[in-house]
Amino acid sequence: MNTWLKVLIGVLSGAAVFTAGILIGHYGMYREPSWAKGLIQDVDESLLEQFMKEIDNKKIEENLRALTKKPHMATQEGDNDLVNLILERWKDPNSGLDEAKKDTYDVYLSFPDAEKPNNVAVVQTNGTTIFTTRIKEKNYTADQLDMDVVQPYAAYGPAGNPKGKLVFANQGKISDFEYLSQSINLTGTIAIVRYGGAGRGAKAINAAKFGVIGIIIYTDPKEMNDGKVSETETYPNSWYLPPSGVERGSFNGYFGDLLTPYYPAKEFTYRMDESEIRDLPPIATQPIGFEDAKTLICALSGADAPSDWQGGLGCTYKVGPGFMSSGLYSGSDVQVNVYNKAMVKKSDNVMGIIQGSVEPDRYVIYGNHRDSWVHGAIDPSSGTAVMLEISRVLGKMVKTGKWRPRRTIIFGSWGAEEFGLIGSVEYTEEYYSLLRERTVAYINVDISVFANATFSAGATPPVQNVIFTSAKQVTIPGDKSTSVYENWKKYSNRTSSVHGLIPRIGNLGAGSDYASFIHYLGITSMDLSYTYDKSKTSARIYPAYHTAYDTFDYAARFIDPGFTSHQTVGRTAGNILLRLADSLIIPFDVTDYTETLEAYVKTASESFGTVLSNKNISLAPINDALAKFKTAASNLKQKISELKNLNEIPLTVRRINDQLMLLERAFLDHRAFPEKYYYSHVIWASKTSSVPTFPGLADAFAKAEETKLDDDWKQVNKHVTIIVQAIESAAHILEVVAYHQLKQSKENGSASNAGTTLKPILEWFVIQSILVAILKQLQQGQQGPEPQFPEPQAGPAAPADADEQSEGEPPATGHAGRSAEEIAENNEAHQDR
Amino acid sequence: MNTWLKVLIGVLSGAAVFTAGILIGHYGMYREPSWAKGLIQDVDESLLEQFMKEIDNKKIEENLRALTKKPHMATQEGDNDLVNLILERWKDPNSGLDEAKKDTYDVYLSFPDAEKPNNVAVVQTNGTTIFTTRIKEKNYTADQLDMDVVQPYAAYGPAGNPKGKLVFANQGKISDFEYLSQSINLTGTIAIVRYGGAGRGAKAINAAKFGVIGIIIYTDPKEMNDGKVSETETYPNSWYLPPSGVERGSFNGYFGDLLTPYYPAKEFTYRMDESEIRDLPPIATQPIGFEDAKTLICALSGADAPSDWQGGLGCTYKVGPGFMSSGLYSGSDVQVNVYNKAMVKKSDNVMGIIQGSVEPDRYVIYGNHRDSWVHGAIDPSSGTAVMLEISRVLGKMVKTGKWRPRRTIIFGSWGAEEFGLIGSVEYTEEYYSLLRERTVAYINVDISVFANATFSAGATPPVQNVIFTSAKQVTIPGDKSTSVYENWKKYSNRTSSVHGLIPRIGNLGAGSDYASFIHYLGITSMDLSYTYDKSKTSARIYPAYHTAYDTFDYAARFIDPGFTSHQTVGRTAGNILLRLADSLIIPFDVTDYTETLEAYVKTASESFGTVLSNKNISLAPINDALAKFKTAASNLKQKISELKNLNEIPLTVRRINDQLMLLERAFLDHRAFPEKYYYSHVIWASKTSSVPTFPGLADAFAKAEETKLDDDWKQVNKHVTIIVQAIESAAHILEVVAYHQLKQSKENGSASNAGTTLKPILEWFVIQSILVAILKQLQQGQQGPEPQFPEPQAGPAAPADADEQSEGEPPATGHAGRSAEEIAENNEAHQDR
Repeated sequence: MNTWLKVLIGVLSGAAVFTAGILIGHYGMYREPSWAKGLIQDVDESLLEQFMKEIDNKKIEENLRALTKKPHMATQEGDNDLVNLILERWKDPNSGLDEAKKDTYDVYLSFPDAEKPNNVAVVQTNGTTIFTTRIKEKNYTADQLDMDVVQPYAAYGPAGNPKGKLVFANQGKISDFEYLSQSINLTGTIAIVRYGGAGRGAKAINAAKFGVIGIIIYTDPKEMNDGKVSETETYPNSWYLPPSGVERGSFNGYFGDLLTPYYPAKEFTYRMDESEIRDLPPIATQPIGFEDAKTLICALSGADAPSDWQGGLGCTYKVGPGFMSSGLYSGSDVQVNVYNKAMVKKSDNVMGIIQGSVEPDRYVIYGNHRDSWVHGAIDPSSGTAVMLEISRVLGKMVKTGKWRPRRTIIFGSWGAEEFGLIGSVEYTEEYYSLLRERTVAYINVDISVFANATFSAGATPPVQNVIFTSAKQVTIPGDKSTSVYENWKKYSNRTSSVHGLIPRIGNLGAGSDYASFIHYLGITSMDLSYTYDKSKTSARIYPAYHTAYDTFDYAARFIDPGFTSHQTVGRTAGNILLRLADSLIIPFDVTDYTETLEAYVKTASESFGTVLSNKNISLAPINDALAKFKTAASNLKQKISELKNLNEIPLTVRRINDQLMLLERAFLDHRAFPEKYYYSHVIWASKTSSVPTFPGLADAFAKAEETKLDDDWKQVNKHVTIIVQAIESAAHILEVVAYHQLKQSKENGSASNAGTTLKPILEWFVIQSILVAILKQLQQGQQGPEPQFPEPQAGPAAPADADEQSEGEPPATGHAGRSAEEIAENNEAHQDR
Repeated sequence: MNTWLKVLIGVLSGAAVFTAGILIGHYGMYREPSWAKGLIQDVDESLLEQFMKEIDNKKIEENLRALTKKPHMATQEGDNDLVNLILERWKDPNSGLDEAKKDTYDVYLSFPDAEKPNNVAVVQTNGTTIFTTRIKEKNYTADQLDMDVVQPYAAYGPAGNPKGKLVFANQGKISDFEYLSQSINLTGTIAIVRYGGAGRGAKAINAAKFGVIGIIIYTDPKEMNDGKVSETETYPNSWYLPPSGVERGSFNGYFGDLLTPYYPAKEFTYRMDESEIRDLPPIATQPIGFEDAKTLICALSGADAPSDWQGGLGCTYKVGPGFMSSGLYSGSDVQVNVYNKAMVKKSDNVMGIIQGSVEPDRYVIYGNHRDSWVHGAIDPSSGTAVMLEISRVLGKMVKTGKWRPRRTIIFGSWGAEEFGLIGSVEYTEEYYSLLRERTVAYINVDISVFANATFSAGATPPVQNVIFTSAKQVTIPGDKSTSVYENWKKYSNRTSSVHGLIPRIGNLGAGSDYASFIHYLGITSMDLSYTYDKSKTSARIYPAYHTAYDTFDYAARFIDPGFTSHQTVGRTAGNILLRLADSLIIPFDVTDYTETLEAYVKTASESFGTVLSNKNISLAPINDALAKFKTAASNLKQKISELKNLNEIPLTVRRINDQLMLLERAFLDHRAFPEKYYYSHVIWASKTSSVPTFPGLADAFAKAEETKLDDDWKQVNKHVTIIVQAIESAAHILEVVAYHQLKQSKENGSASNAGTTLKPILEWFVIQSILVAILKQLQQGQQGPEPQFPEPQAGPAAPADADEQSEGEPPATGHAGRSAEEIAENNEAHQDR
């Protein structure tokens, strides 16, 4: 009897303690399911440190050497070799990515005829050619001797052999031809112009409007070479352009494959007629070096060119027409001989993918083009060398199981960029829907190092925040005490009304592969590089740009000896990439858009306000929309800041991330600029007006002011509507989403479901405890005192705690804060539509 | 000593048992965090049952009575009263929604002049008017006497008083006028045409092309009244149209506010000139009743009209021109007198919102227009009466805390639909970005009950699945053994290659407010109603449509006595709404799109294949794209079916739901139909060709066949590209997203994080157990046997199980399946881009 009772008490006590344990284990100790851990993992700072350490300047140097072994113009053998090289890297079993593949497009390109080289000739009236420009650039380092060095030419310039009197037309701007035409009949002339001031193709289009029949373009040493002209002062003795160096380039009128706008250039894709291509040079066009340009310009007759037209060729520039009667070329014409041929060729993008672990359907894309004009050591291989080093370090982390990004990372090696951003545009066309829905950001690193002085970035406002965060974590080459950020701020800065003195981030034009990402798809984009000290050179760009001198030797000796600037760009860009891919909340600061929009509105009001109010066009609706945007952006930022330290439910994080991701998309209006291919972003579209405000408004205003037509003033009014709609759409996307929890009325128990399911178990536990106590009393009464097992300390404490929880209070764990957060959300007045 | 040992053993045993409890509680019993519960909650079938029970036919009847008290043409007093009524319902503290508000737009409408009523007159050559059509419809039930009954008119028809000889032009199709013009000079004539065959506005546009200067439209009793013409046979004695009844309507050329296409018609919005509005009737247009039409048509002279032009007026229709010389009107002209005025007026949408609990940023929208032409009992108030009953039942469930949808539900009461879907179009314009990113589906219930026979639906393929599921759960009025589904299948069916014999779901045109949702935003949409037994009537629509006889009395006596069909629609539509809002996985079957696309491709190939291959246009790329789509759709379906019974991680569910939601969006191409406002959906855009295939291809083919122009054949080719791009985009969206888990390499431990965190605790437990055993041995040695507390049974079992788990196997809970699932996913070859 006694023993039986003891056993019973023992069993019940054991059961009670066991139950207490179960209850504490199950409810008292907060436990996420294993999958929840990944969901709330934020960016790992120590991993970032490790990543940056591993970015190796020597490896970048090796990459660049491999990438520049041969000229690799789009679809050339050298280009195809690099396709294979990159595929191999990205498929490497130890440092490759999850997947690598090539996407092939059939794209419309233009090449010179190797059999019939283009040239510019001086031809006497009797037909005798007395001077011909160089066919190839002069050899200095053997690189120039490679059979695959393409002869200088103007891609997409038409074939032809126009002949006429030479005139000098400065930069080939409309105003330049207007000036000349005051004193010269330009009809039938050949114009020589220098690079700069107007787009490549625009020079020929402008010229043709004035009757000019052929155009020659050269690089003036004043602009590119800080005046240096002799071989002793130029490459291979310095970074300056040798006298025979010629800048190649594309003379396309819009970007993407010219025959298939808006559709990927697949084999079967509908192609427009070549005659339908818009804005190509209508007249024969040929670029030459400044040595040859000097021969032509310094022999010109006619009036002196205006002083601001004068350049660095060492003579007084005259405008022509024709050559000095006292010189060798007296009476001669100039003939532009162009034999370019356009053709459709297969061009590859190489795509490499690291699949995301938590949000595989969210993409961070990092890209650069692969094709160059010649060896392209700086343009674009300096970027590719860095990209391959970033992908190697990340690939190794993935292959060794150390890391996997939260979001999917996609690397893109674009083809045929030099001809007009073709590879990246075809990619965004083919995957338009998918990329539009899933892409968080696009990072472009084309030329990674222009020069050694400072980091530089162009971007849309939301990424300023993450660029700065990363730039503060990286130090500059050779000085571990100075951050990229501080150094940058010294070279280029502005005073922000919100942030004070900060580095200046430029706007994104259409100069590289980010163009279709930002302008067509509305994907938050950035373009990163290391660049000049502008106080030390006035070069428009590094002097070997697009010439046969942009070689490994040039890069290693003059652009970035030691490749430490490359390394710095790799660390900074990689840091940004990792933050975008791994941060729990996408590190965009949407309030930074407010500053841009406010500046635009202020400028519009100051520049156009008076005239517009006379035309009964009010800018007030833009102000109203901006106020909505401002409120929505700062509320969302506030919400994010409240969220950061909490165990937020995964869908709340996703919801906010979607808002951040889609902000830029809301500024898209595919009908805003019907005359411009691709441009759809109401804030960043191209414009001809120089007024720094909404591009559609600025251009429409300029046109209406010029034409004075009612219809053109109506277009101004229409652009006010377009702007309001874009800003309001953006505000709607950012507005904090109102929501309620499933159960919120007091009578229905606590906000947490745990309360209701816990209750019966607790009741059972209390009943059992009482039963144990009764049995113990019974045992004591029968048997007298006996050595007692001490009550486990945690025993009574557990149900007491649990009981408190069952009163309807949220549990006192990190988990609790969330409920409070959700209640706060319920009280928010903001409506989600 | 002995006692001390006992106490020690007791403490350690207690601690061991307690620890075992903690371990089991913490790891052995699967526990989601409270927030995770909501995340994986699927639709609650018992709640659905409850919902359907509560849908009350009497309440619908009361709603309809309240809604039809006064005529409520857009922006009329009656319309504004209903705005307030609906706001009041949706703000009701006991059965209202979370939020209700009105959105106001300034829209371009057209009204007759109350002071100068429109009419059609017979005018003698001396100018004497000898006959005038009715100004108002005849009164039967006092409803027709209401001062707010708008006089019959053709909205957007221009004012004018053209006079000429009358001709009968059948339905006003191009072919009708071509036929007449063979024998009659139509210049300067007035044409009388019947409704049907061509759109309202198209009749006038067609007429004008042949020189016709005015047009009269009437409803022929043959088409609308099954031949019934006498007052004894028509309303109020039957559902047929009385002789004086006139169908009003909008003669707009495109939908949405005509002055602000693509932009919301806010006060400040840019408005085009009225002269820029496209496709409005160019000549005076007036609708009349068949009583008046008989007077005119039966007096015509000329040849007998062709037999298929003959109608139900009780005379042989002649074509004119002019009246019989033997009759009263001999020599007389007919004059169409129209005094319509267009103006911009404020029109409201009323929006009601139930915020979602888990995915508040996903919307299911349910809408109907509010405005009618007169009392609009059937059109649209039968739909509004049902909507208000659904919102009442849901509102009550929300207010009492019984339920809250997973996703946000938005109710819309659209304004000015009758003038051209204006309210819904402005809504989709204003919130374009937000709706495009967040809307799961749009449910339209306009006229909820045309007649009592059967349920009917138009929809895009993915929702066929959920419509059928719901239709199977609802029984038809008066027969609890027959489901809506079975009954529907009897009346209208088709044989699906996949599903066998199923009810036929129609395509969505642009007949009601779903138009901009599906065609402009690419949102999966449906249009639901109860309708006719087509074997019992040949009426084009219910005969009182758009007349002063569409009253509560008409609805209650002839359309749905007892309002049980209304109730059935309410139950079915509500069931669909709840499934879309509450299902864990959106209940779309994407593979049903394959059937549509395959049929399109087959038809295109059969109808155009031979001609196209002669033109070197291949349809093969469409076939290739379709194959990709088919694979992607069936793989995703497979993935979903594997997912359903598992505790999937919330972001996997969200990812798949995003794919389902965005499928329809991928078919959008805003450049596919540049000449058509809003139409962007490559599969469902409007077309003029009758070939049931891709609309752009069918129309381009028809045009090229007609013109034989090379440029038009190129357009055919371009549409092949457009179709391929749309289908491939859709395939990309559906492709199963490849992803990897954070840790997957074997050396790094199990796939689950739990394994690694569990290990040290388990080790501690094992050490402790060994310690306890040693102490017990010690005690036994010193003291001899004593009554032992039995080992708790669960104790050793728990660590044994747990140990197995730590070997790297996924835990054996529901949770475990997920890991296996994820591993399977890793092996999938499908790439996400």
